[in-house]
Amino acid sequence: MARVPFETVCEVITEAFVRAGMREEDARTCARVHAESSCDGVYSHGVNRVARFVDYLRRGWVDAHARPAIFREVGVIESYDGHRGPGILNAFFAVNRAMAIAAEQGVGIVTLRDTTHWMRGGTYGWHAADKGYAALLWTNTESCMPSWGGKNTRLGNNPFVMAVPRGNGHIVLDMAMSQYSYGKLQVTRLKGAQLPYPGGFDQDGKLTAEPGPIEQSMRILPIGYWKGSGFAILLDTLAAILSEGLATNQIDKVGRGSCTGCSQVFIVFDPRQLGGAEFSDKVADSVADYVNSSTPDEKSREVLYPGQSTLRIRAEHRANGVVVDDDIWAEVMTLAGRTAA
Amino acid sequence: MARVPFETVCEVITEAFVRAGMREEDARTCARVHAESSCDGVYSHGVNRVARFVDYLRRGWVDAHARPAIFREVGVIESYDGHRGPGILNAFFAVNRAMAIAAEQGVGIVTLRDTTHWMRGGTYGWHAADKGYAALLWTNTESCMPSWGGKNTRLGNNPFVMAVPRGNGHIVLDMAMSQYSYGKLQVTRLKGAQLPYPGGFDQDGKLTAEPGPIEQSMRILPIGYWKGSGFAILLDTLAAILSEGLATNQIDKVGRGSCTGCSQVFIVFDPRQLGGAEFSDKVADSVADYVNSSTPDEKSREVLYPGQSTLRIRAEHRANGVVVDDDIWAEVMTLAGRTAA
Repeated sequence: MARVPFETVCEVITEAFVRAGMREEDARTCARVHAESSCDGVYSHGVNRVARFVDYLRRGWVDAHARPAIFREVGVIESYDGHRGPGILNAFFAVNRAMAIAAEQGVGIVTLRDTTHWMRGGTYGWHAADKGYAALLWTNTESCMPSWGGKNTRLGNNPFVMAVPRGNGHIVLDMAMSQYSYGKLQVTRLKGAQLPYPGGFDQDGKLTAEPGPIEQSMRILPIGYWKGSGFAILLDTLAAILSEGLATNQIDKVGRGSCTGCSQVFIVFDPRQLGGAEFSDKVADSVADYVNSSTPDEKSREVLYPGQSTLRIRAEHRANGVVVDDDIWAEVMTLAGRTAA
Repeated sequence: MARVPFETVCEVITEAFVRAGMREEDARTCARVHAESSCDGVYSHGVNRVARFVDYLRRGWVDAHARPAIFREVGVIESYDGHRGPGILNAFFAVNRAMAIAAEQGVGIVTLRDTTHWMRGGTYGWHAADKGYAALLWTNTESCMPSWGGKNTRLGNNPFVMAVPRGNGHIVLDMAMSQYSYGKLQVTRLKGAQLPYPGGFDQDGKLTAEPGPIEQSMRILPIGYWKGSGFAILLDTLAAILSEGLATNQIDKVGRGSCTGCSQVFIVFDPRQLGGAEFSDKVADSVADYVNSSTPDEKSREVLYPGQSTLRIRAEHRANGVVVDDDIWAEVMTLAGRTAA
């Protein structure tokens, strides 16, 4: 593990993306999202994900120069085709458009079809909250998890994001439908450790906290067993219908990497057009305070609301440098042309 | 257990509600929702919930004659004060208004503040889907569950509903944020059984599938541990902000029974205004087929999408009578004045 200043992380990733064919401004935007993800402790979609995105660009699975194009407008709902452009750029475009509509109409809804991986979904929730908007966003994905009661993968991880702005720290949820990601399984296995709670079934259908057998069976557990399974199904269906795009079963046939061809929904509210920013902030404070006033359980020293620990990690990484894995950072430096391959 | 014809269940509950002070038409609407819940196998909010609702009416916690009143209209968003009228009537009003707006604008959003228990949330999802709409609905509630890492109750169960219409059977999710309801804990304890999976922590912080110790500690488990905890927090905050109503921490101070004073959000989409009913149906079919085509696991004979088993239970109960608990049915008959108290 090493520490790299945040701005350096941004610069190096920008260079890697430019060398992979992106325009500099686009590369800078995407690089910043990867850097911020690592900075917020979401390593899986931060620096660790740079090489894979470069690979997708080189294979032509992501079109560096494609831009979203509108194909339907119905009231506050605008529907765009993402043309398999960079998922980060498409998602920023979408959430920004939704915010612009919401500023006029109280709510703005933008859908994207045939887009590509948006990386960390929380990015767009934090972004909206930073501008004073509340957001409800999700994407579907290729299948990686069985439906409840099934053995083979049928459901996407379908990350779901909710964000509420708050002067004293936004409340932001960014959750996938599986209890643990495959990344978490791998990291835990490499440490020789167990998952904190059971994370899936082994090949014989036994619930287990051992990561290895779950990686082999691909029978990862949906959050809340049957409930998360159902939630994933509905998010997928509604995303495909609203965006007039692909559902998970169709994304599985695209076969051009994770999320290529996926469907996304961005619902953004402007509290300033409703009860007002002051009221909204007061509600958010009351919720945060109520959670924080919990009596900690036997394993905890404090009880936090979603997003609260993110701000602490962010501040620490900004002050002391972003934590990067040595090998992964070396690879990114190579992709940036800063060291020999 | 007894079997009672569906129409008889409706009639008897209607009489009970009329005797508690409701107008007959209103009583009929509410009774039908309770009857349909039992008919669909959701006993907790069906016949089993009649006596409690009558009690709330008699205490004045629910105002039988109150009607929702609009206090803000911003584009496709209409905000109503529920005036603590019957939650079922308020929720039907809200979802019907949202459908009417969606029919014109593609999406309709109605919020309710200071309403009362809507009983089975899925009711309004099924209702919207029956009319060809997709829906995303939720309510907040009083606290009944600790935040992740905490010991004392801070979070509502905040039922969350998603529905997508489908010619061959709607896809409908109706889930609370706890892994199990207190009702399920009680029923399981009375049987002397264990929960299928751990459902909470005992007073010493040990995760357990024994219902009794969880009922005592009130440390029921959110779906997906920290994830469901976060989801409950965001649903609560956003419901209160959008409806300009109370958050869970404020509902806790109302102290007039479950959900009295709660905040609700009804987001309804009209697929006919977007990609069209045919496209929407095709997507929903593809999702349902993909799930149904799963290889069943060791414990299952088939793999179903959310709402699929509901239709089977409904058909069976319609054909053979609704299953009711003898003692509970006797109590409802008494409330209806059909038998002596």
